[in-house]
Amino acid sequence: MSHNDLLLEVLGDRKSVLDLGELLFNPRSIAIIGASPNKTSITGQPIQHLLERKYEGRIYPITEKFQEISGIKCYPTVADMPEPADLAVIIVNAVRVPEVLSECGKKGVRVAVIISGGFAEAGAEGVALQEKLRQVSEKEGIRVVGPNCQGLLNVGERVCAGFGPILSLEYGVQAGVLSFVTQSGGFGYGLVNILAQQGIGFRRVISTGNESDLSAVDFIEQFILDPKTRVVAAYMEGLKGGRKLKALGDLALQNDKPILLWKVGSTDVGKRAASSHTASLGGDAAVASAIFKQIGAIELRSVEDFIDYSKALSKQKRPAGNRVAILSASGGAGVLISDECVRSGLEVPLLPETCRRQLSSVAPALGTLQNPIDVMGKIYDEPQHLKKALEVIANEPSIDSIVVINPIRKGERAAQIAAVIAEVDKSTNKPVFVSWAARKDFAAEAYEILYQAGIPCFDSPDRCAKALGMLARYADARRRMTGAVVQTQPSSGATAMQLLKNHSGSTLSEHVAKQVLSAYGIPITREKLATSPEEALEFARNLNFPVAMKVQSQDIAHKTEAGVVRLGINSPEELAPIYAELIDRAMRFSPNARLEGVLLQEMVSGGVEVIVGVFTDPSFGPIVMFGLGGIYAEVLRDVSFRSPPLSHSVALEMISETKCYQILSGARGRAPSDINALAEVIVQVGNLAIDLQSEIIELDINPLAVLAKGKGVKALDALIVTRA
Amino acid sequence: MSHNDLLLEVLGDRKSVLDLGELLFNPRSIAIIGASPNKTSITGQPIQHLLERKYEGRIYPITEKFQEISGIKCYPTVADMPEPADLAVIIVNAVRVPEVLSECGKKGVRVAVIISGGFAEAGAEGVALQEKLRQVSEKEGIRVVGPNCQGLLNVGERVCAGFGPILSLEYGVQAGVLSFVTQSGGFGYGLVNILAQQGIGFRRVISTGNESDLSAVDFIEQFILDPKTRVVAAYMEGLKGGRKLKALGDLALQNDKPILLWKVGSTDVGKRAASSHTASLGGDAAVASAIFKQIGAIELRSVEDFIDYSKALSKQKRPAGNRVAILSASGGAGVLISDECVRSGLEVPLLPETCRRQLSSVAPALGTLQNPIDVMGKIYDEPQHLKKALEVIANEPSIDSIVVINPIRKGERAAQIAAVIAEVDKSTNKPVFVSWAARKDFAAEAYEILYQAGIPCFDSPDRCAKALGMLARYADARRRMTGAVVQTQPSSGATAMQLLKNHSGSTLSEHVAKQVLSAYGIPITREKLATSPEEALEFARNLNFPVAMKVQSQDIAHKTEAGVVRLGINSPEELAPIYAELIDRAMRFSPNARLEGVLLQEMVSGGVEVIVGVFTDPSFGPIVMFGLGGIYAEVLRDVSFRSPPLSHSVALEMISETKCYQILSGARGRAPSDINALAEVIVQVGNLAIDLQSEIIELDINPLAVLAKGKGVKALDALIVTRA
Repeated sequence: MSHNDLLLEVLGDRKSVLDLGELLFNPRSIAIIGASPNKTSITGQPIQHLLERKYEGRIYPITEKFQEISGIKCYPTVADMPEPADLAVIIVNAVRVPEVLSECGKKGVRVAVIISGGFAEAGAEGVALQEKLRQVSEKEGIRVVGPNCQGLLNVGERVCAGFGPILSLEYGVQAGVLSFVTQSGGFGYGLVNILAQQGIGFRRVISTGNESDLSAVDFIEQFILDPKTRVVAAYMEGLKGGRKLKALGDLALQNDKPILLWKVGSTDVGKRAASSHTASLGGDAAVASAIFKQIGAIELRSVEDFIDYSKALSKQKRPAGNRVAILSASGGAGVLISDECVRSGLEVPLLPETCRRQLSSVAPALGTLQNPIDVMGKIYDEPQHLKKALEVIANEPSIDSIVVINPIRKGERAAQIAAVIAEVDKSTNKPVFVSWAARKDFAAEAYEILYQAGIPCFDSPDRCAKALGMLARYADARRRMTGAVVQTQPSSGATAMQLLKNHSGSTLSEHVAKQVLSAYGIPITREKLATSPEEALEFARNLNFPVAMKVQSQDIAHKTEAGVVRLGINSPEELAPIYAELIDRAMRFSPNARLEGVLLQEMVSGGVEVIVGVFTDPSFGPIVMFGLGGIYAEVLRDVSFRSPPLSHSVALEMISETKCYQILSGARGRAPSDINALAEVIVQVGNLAIDLQSEIIELDINPLAVLAKGKGVKALDALIVTRA
Repeated sequence: MSHNDLLLEVLGDRKSVLDLGELLFNPRSIAIIGASPNKTSITGQPIQHLLERKYEGRIYPITEKFQEISGIKCYPTVADMPEPADLAVIIVNAVRVPEVLSECGKKGVRVAVIISGGFAEAGAEGVALQEKLRQVSEKEGIRVVGPNCQGLLNVGERVCAGFGPILSLEYGVQAGVLSFVTQSGGFGYGLVNILAQQGIGFRRVISTGNESDLSAVDFIEQFILDPKTRVVAAYMEGLKGGRKLKALGDLALQNDKPILLWKVGSTDVGKRAASSHTASLGGDAAVASAIFKQIGAIELRSVEDFIDYSKALSKQKRPAGNRVAILSASGGAGVLISDECVRSGLEVPLLPETCRRQLSSVAPALGTLQNPIDVMGKIYDEPQHLKKALEVIANEPSIDSIVVINPIRKGERAAQIAAVIAEVDKSTNKPVFVSWAARKDFAAEAYEILYQAGIPCFDSPDRCAKALGMLARYADARRRMTGAVVQTQPSSGATAMQLLKNHSGSTLSEHVAKQVLSAYGIPITREKLATSPEEALEFARNLNFPVAMKVQSQDIAHKTEAGVVRLGINSPEELAPIYAELIDRAMRFSPNARLEGVLLQEMVSGGVEVIVGVFTDPSFGPIVMFGLGGIYAEVLRDVSFRSPPLSHSVALEMISETKCYQILSGARGRAPSDINALAEVIVQVGNLAIDLQSEIIELDINPLAVLAKGKGVKALDALIVTRA
């Protein structure tokens, strides 16, 4: 089975995912278990929200306390319902939830939204109760959203199953193309409220709470598959199902469903127990960011990102490249937006001479024809000239997208300008973005025209540039998506696995770790393990002087700190005393250490020392890390991460992401290093990490010497930490 | 004269600065030269704006074309005015401006706002015209704002002298405490419009355009001195008067007038011609950021920063430290805001047991008493409990500021919550910030209560945290302001100056450069310049082997690249052949190089290699740089900048700002380095940079070896580039 098959295995069957989505978001009938007529309480709100939205399906309030609620007949128990409801909403006391869920399962209900709190968020007893819940859900085959969640909303189809003011009609959430899953109910619906006020419409919204069964990642999958969703967003405090998320990346790119991910709650790196350098460098937040990037997802870091990126992505135009033309009525705004464009990875190229000639012929009132095109205010008073100028730019092949920074105009003139922009936008497949800070009440018609045309419109030039930069990066990720299947060599895995089985300790000595690397074709130093001074002498002669000597023991992970390494030994006479001294030091450092012997090793001179490693992330599994070697990696944190398997080009990307890349490529007159050989090692380390993930927790190649171009690389030291 | 006196010399006399401010922003009479009755044109707008705002002074339209405009008598020429107007606004054709300005000067007008464009922004002819203007202004002693600017606005005193829609009443800019100078007229007034819509009021606004005379920095000075301004802001594309800006830092901190600086248009570092490593590391943007930080100013990077920081600073409360208590009704928002607080340099400490006990006794409906305090929604329905809880937190000495994240409540309940927050805010000197995303129309009364109380209120928790972080840093800068006078040793300067005079080249050889350093007490390697192999041998014996040999020539700045350095020479026999070889290489590298000889130098082993340097910034003058030595400094850009003179504590701050600090302070079991000795070198390099700024453009000490704690430092190599 290839890695890609392995990865796809974690995805659900498409039809069952879509069916579940329909049951949840478009149910023909909803049971509200624990319903009450109290309109202000959580138990009363779901029915009120449904009635207010004129839900077209059947409602079954389940309660022994009431005969009817708002004219709807109540049923004393789940068993009494006239049919198995498509969806059950559970709002009873926590302790009763497992029983009620079981009844739902027996009745034939296939999915439940559990709003009740008092589970894993509420101490040890709650944890136990949630485990009970999970068991019921598994036994009865009923899927669960929650517990401790706020429910769901499907504006377009009048479905609503939850509580909170934002779900009510008066908050004016409109139907749209953005589907959003949030672990936090309160803040998540708060975000819905903020986005709704910015004119962003929603397709499906759901709060997942404690995620005893269905997770945010499951809904990301569902939204990708949902034909009416165009943009997928998730707000997460933890990350359940990291491996599945990885598998969703390509699916989303193939379907052009951008995923916006907001992950908060980064844990303190220092708290993590780490034996290897690699693991100590892998902060949760940094790893998550790297994986999001790897799968082509877009990371959110603020409410403004969420608003702006949603706007930018809703209209399904994707730029063909990163070259932007800017039309600005203010020099100051032009400078600012150029800065921000460049910071966001966009280019603001000079316009070709032909284009500039055309521009000055169609619109004499244009100002300087640099880019940003510093427009005289006058052109905005001649909308037909503006239109022609925009058309010239839209037809210019060296430009991929257009930004119009509007001057402050009011009323009818503003509307004319907006109409012209909308016309041009319609006639081109290049994205057209607008930055316009006119007062909403002075240019209401203009804003409405842009809104109806789906043209992303931003309050400030910096936010406009940042959003366009995001769009260009997303479009680039789509273009680079290869779908290439990465295959490893089964023989490497078998050899390596045998080596691991022969060594029971939790840490492999350098010598053994290097044999594992060698099985994957990773070049290592010439070396041999001596168990006596005589052997040491023999081996050293074969290696040629100078040599290095290192005590080998699975109980001494950090040899330099223990003082059991000697480098640059130049003559046979020195060997025996050094041998004795090293063994003595090892015994003093760790009296009970199991010594395997002393490794005799060639000295490698020159080369840039880097570190390549693997650690295990609780969400994403094995993660490959690359960075500058030695003390600098730790101090400067100039490292990059990816989830294996890795193609050669992804490995190159990892290298080029670090500042270390400049050193390797030959900064300040240095000879360039063998970057290709380095990339190949990174690829193989990725394969190793996948093959041996059941055995290996951490791996360090530190340092790996990257020699001059064409001379390859060599692992100088290595450490493997196993699960044993 | 001390450095501080030198710096203060660039500041204007306080009274004349204030007088000029009154003439400009609060004139008793205004001449509009080139006025017209066309209300939509630039020439017609100033009078209309003044009439609309019911300006209380006298207006003198100067024009030959009209007898009267809107009932106001016109005068054909400046000379015809009945009195010298306090302020002249000039809107005539560019070519006529110098003449008109001259007439104004002769009439006795002391300051003019020149709105006309067609000067330095418009090619070579315009540059010449602006120079002419400058000469007139100097000759006649009339101060100039502009040309090519949009004018000024003083809402509170009904004064307005400029054009553009934002200056009109209908845009609703309110009077307030923020004074704002902008180089860009269009974008600057666009920002005024955006901030005004967020409820931020303005004291004085001015656009400076081409800055032929008065610059943005001059207005920063004026706003600091203006008693009614509480927050100073500037939007700048270039920076004229960097040295003055430096001098303004302490003045602003002393007067508690925070300066918000938005500098756009960073130039490409690569374009700068640089002989030293230091200069190549000094990008304009990075240097400006460092200086802004050094003087305690607050850098803006987005429109949102401007809005949020203005809100946060308007109320004159400053936190005593960086410890914040967060009250949140949503766990999700709590996690997010905690992340952002930590990222912004704030602490979110656990509340002491006593405080938690008090909290649970006054407000039983509180949820978890961690920090963020995860509040049950219920407490918001019991505003008196909320008030008591807030009071307990306000009285807790281990907390410096309070953030309340409000749940979505409407109408009267929202107003009650707001009133409670306002009451508590009034009773404490700790800043109280609110993050509240309720719909404006649903909680209008509540928002008004917070607004009237001056409580900073933010749409999103992340922006709230970032603004509070800024406020804490500003308060910290005020506390750290020492006002200590830094004095240098005049004798050092004299000795060094003599050395410079003895060497005419534009580059000083290492040997001479080190003597300059030595004059400032900076420890250098033991070394001696040999002019023959015999001398070399003699000197080497005195130094003890191993030694280094380096060819010395003012024409070979980078010796390693030229191959004229040999390190680690172990025996007398090697000296003569190496001497010959090095001289030979030098001649081949640069046949016309003037060779001074070969430097014999002790080898220094151990120590962390860093770089300390100086370069000259066009705005700020000499800048001291510190960073990691060798190739890493350039590649990793892990460097810090400050403008000299530097105190010991500022030097320590420079060191601790870089990641290199961790290496120096002993990361991963290394022995700590002599950071104090390093700081002293940085201080002395700063003194040298000031004393010798007329002679030296760039200086590198690269590397400077920082030895183990107590062992000092040693300059291993040095380079000085002079103005010669």
